Amino acid sequence: MTEASPLVLSARDARGVYTLTLNDPARFNALGGAMLDALQHALDEVAHDEQARAVVLGGAGKAFCAGHNLKDMAANPQLAWYQQLFAQCSRVMLAIHKLPVPVIARVHGMATAAGCQLVAQCDLAVASLEASFATSGIHYGLFCATPSVPLVRNVPAKQAMEMLLTGDFIDAPTALAQGLVNRAVPAHQLDAQVEALVAAIVEKPRAAVAMGKALVYQQRELGLDAAYQLAGQAMASNMMDDAAQEGARAFAEKRQPAWKALHGA
Amino acid sequence: MTEASPLVLSARDARGVYTLTLNDPARFNALGGAMLDALQHALDEVAHDEQARAVVLGGAGKAFCAGHNLKDMAANPQLAWYQQLFAQCSRVMLAIHKLPVPVIARVHGMATAAGCQLVAQCDLAVASLEASFATSGIHYGLFCATPSVPLVRNVPAKQAMEMLLTGDFIDAPTALAQGLVNRAVPAHQLDAQVEALVAAIVEKPRAAVAMGKALVYQQRELGLDAAYQLAGQAMASNMMDDAAQEGARAFAEKRQPAWKALHGA
Amino acid sequence: MTEASPLVLSARDARGVYTLTLNDPARFNALGGAMLDALQHALDEVAHDEQARAVVLGGAGKAFCAGHNLKDMAANPQLAWYQQLFAQCSRVMLAIHKLPVPVIARVHGMATAAGCQLVAQCDLAVASLEASFATSGIHYGLFCATPSVPLVRNVPAKQAMEMLLTGDFIDAPTALAQGLVNRAVPAHQLDAQVEALVAAIVEKPRAAVAMGKALVYQQRELGLDAAYQLAGQAMASNMMDDAAQEGARAFAEKRQPAWKALHGA
Repeated sequence: MTEASPLVLSARDARGVYTLTLNDPARFNALGGAMLDALQHALDEVAHDEQARAVVLGGAGKAFCAGHNLKDMAANPQLAWYQQLFAQCSRVMLAIHKLPVPVIARVHGMATAAGCQLVAQCDLAVASLEASFATSGIHYGLFCATPSVPLVRNVPAKQAMEMLLTGDFIDAPTALAQGLVNRAVPAHQLDAQVEALVAAIVEKPRAAVAMGKALVYQQRELGLDAAYQLAGQAMASNMMDDAAQEGARAFAEKRQPAWKALHGA
Repeated sequence: MTEASPLVLSARDARGVYTLTLNDPARFNALGGAMLDALQHALDEVAHDEQARAVVLGGAGKAFCAGHNLKDMAANPQLAWYQQLFAQCSRVMLAIHKLPVPVIARVHGMATAAGCQLVAQCDLAVASLEASFATSGIHYGLFCATPSVPLVRNVPAKQAMEMLLTGDFIDAPTALAQGLVNRAVPAHQLDAQVEALVAAIVEKPRAAVAMGKALVYQQRELGLDAAYQLAGQAMASNMMDDAAQEGARAFAEKRQPAWKALHGA
Repeated sequence: MTEASPLVLSARDARGVYTLTLNDPARFNALGGAMLDALQHALDEVAHDEQARAVVLGGAGKAFCAGHNLKDMAANPQLAWYQQLFAQCSRVMLAIHKLPVPVIARVHGMATAAGCQLVAQCDLAVASLEASFATSGIHYGLFCATPSVPLVRNVPAKQAMEMLLTGDFIDAPTALAQGLVNRAVPAHQLDAQVEALVAAIVEKPRAAVAMGKALVYQQRELGLDAAYQLAGQAMASNMMDDAAQEGARAFAEKRQPAWKALHGA
């Protein structure tokens, strides 16, 4: 790795949209320790940017991401080493989860094991019809335990169990039907479809999106009464934001909110 | 509002089936405070009717329900006012949830924000192909936090998040595919399909339906062992009902249960 | 019942794959007390076989399984008798859940009430296009409370509620679309499709499969952070297994794991 080719490329546009690109095509963007460090660093940068609005997560080269680096793992047969690796990987996944802006997976090719986990952990995902998905660790004797965490929170139980037990690939239309991705589109439409989601997000107020993302995941883990209590409080606070006040007035006056006009929406 | 045009029309047929109609077409049946009061009152009436068997919830005019009244909200920029509004709305939603009879949404048109929440919160839903669904608050800077509560309990995670972040509409077939409704049918078949579900429910014993509805939601929030324990107890008690005893005897004697024959089933 | 025709046929092949066949075709394999005893006994046998690798659960005759024996239930109108029956049945279901090997339902015909529950409780399910599914107890005044436990953990909320309230049948393609089964295939392909899943499982290391099955269900009941913590520990331990070490080395050396070659995969 040199300064000229970092493991994760990070580009920010004027809107505050980050494009993070896993950039180790020779290893199919495998999530070794250095790659996880680089991804954590890039996500932390987004977390500290108060003008950030969204993240698009993609991969360079043929694959989206091949998951953990089994070669490194074969070379380090120590429990503590593995514990550290999976803890580091889980921190990256939870960083995506905790980021105050939506993270969209842009899946142009193969997403396997922890690569499939990345897709599942993102808030939204757009797949090319050339993409494919597998929790393939079991082919090498390693059950995709951490990938199963977001997988079962996206995909029906029996379909998730089939992927985990067989390690077999599903294609993009199947991933769409099962809820793993939001769109499955021809490769040449992939960027346009990702941009459509990004554009829909950036025209909304940042604070409402941040509150909303956190609230959805938090209330989902609660019983129904507690979920309503939490959501009601969050929504009342949201309504006191200047942007929501302007939005409600704009609605009453049958015009666009001033903040939305800024985005040309 | 006059006595002649109440905000919620309530009609009860001889079977104990209530048809509740949101009746403020000029405001697309928006859930302002008075409408929520009227709906709560109508639901309370059902709760106190020991012969009630089912509720069909629909809307008058072009839309099913446009959600909260943003105009009122713009006119009352106080945290306590918003807290009260969302608490009142959540009480209505929980009243649907706690009602001992199934509630079926009859969705003939647009269901947005808390209107979409109503559909999600109902036990069953039948949509016309002319219906459409959106959690559109975010277009005005207000994330649909309380609507997200039943939405994520009906629809896969990424699809729910897409609706909530973009505010965009989905059509009835998409709502069907994602689990938000049970049927998506041509407009002229809407009432017949709702009636088919109603007829299936009223021919069953009231007590078994009431126990079942409550049990399903309660056990779903528990771990598997506790869920089985609760369900086993509920089912054993159910089996001691006269209706279940008659049902089991009828099965053994290869005839219709006497209570079912009453309904012409 | 005679020794020549036990209520559950159990056959084990050289791979450790058990085929359990509910064998009371005259009663559509109803789950009476003796049948539940026989099934529990057969599952316990698998649990004690340290070389067991998978279970295929099917039914003899026309139906897969018609659920509880309503005739017996009509003859024993005592709360304690019902409590014992449902507790016994739940123990069988939890035995499937706790078994360290995957259980695949082979559904060639009708699966109703606790028969439908069996399908839902299995880890995987393959259905013939001639199969059909219903939680039909409510037709006899008995809400399928215990079947609802695995049903709502497989199928979207409103679809599950519709099945439970109406008692109506869904066909195999609908069961597939809703997540109740993994495959819906022509009857003559049923065994081949079941075998494809079995073959995919037996070529994987037993310990990794056992850890994985248990982990998936356990982490699903936890919050996201706790789920990741548990999964990370499980995966690190898994990686210390000889089979996973061999798998990782095989990957690095671009060859099949030695244990996989044994299975001809």
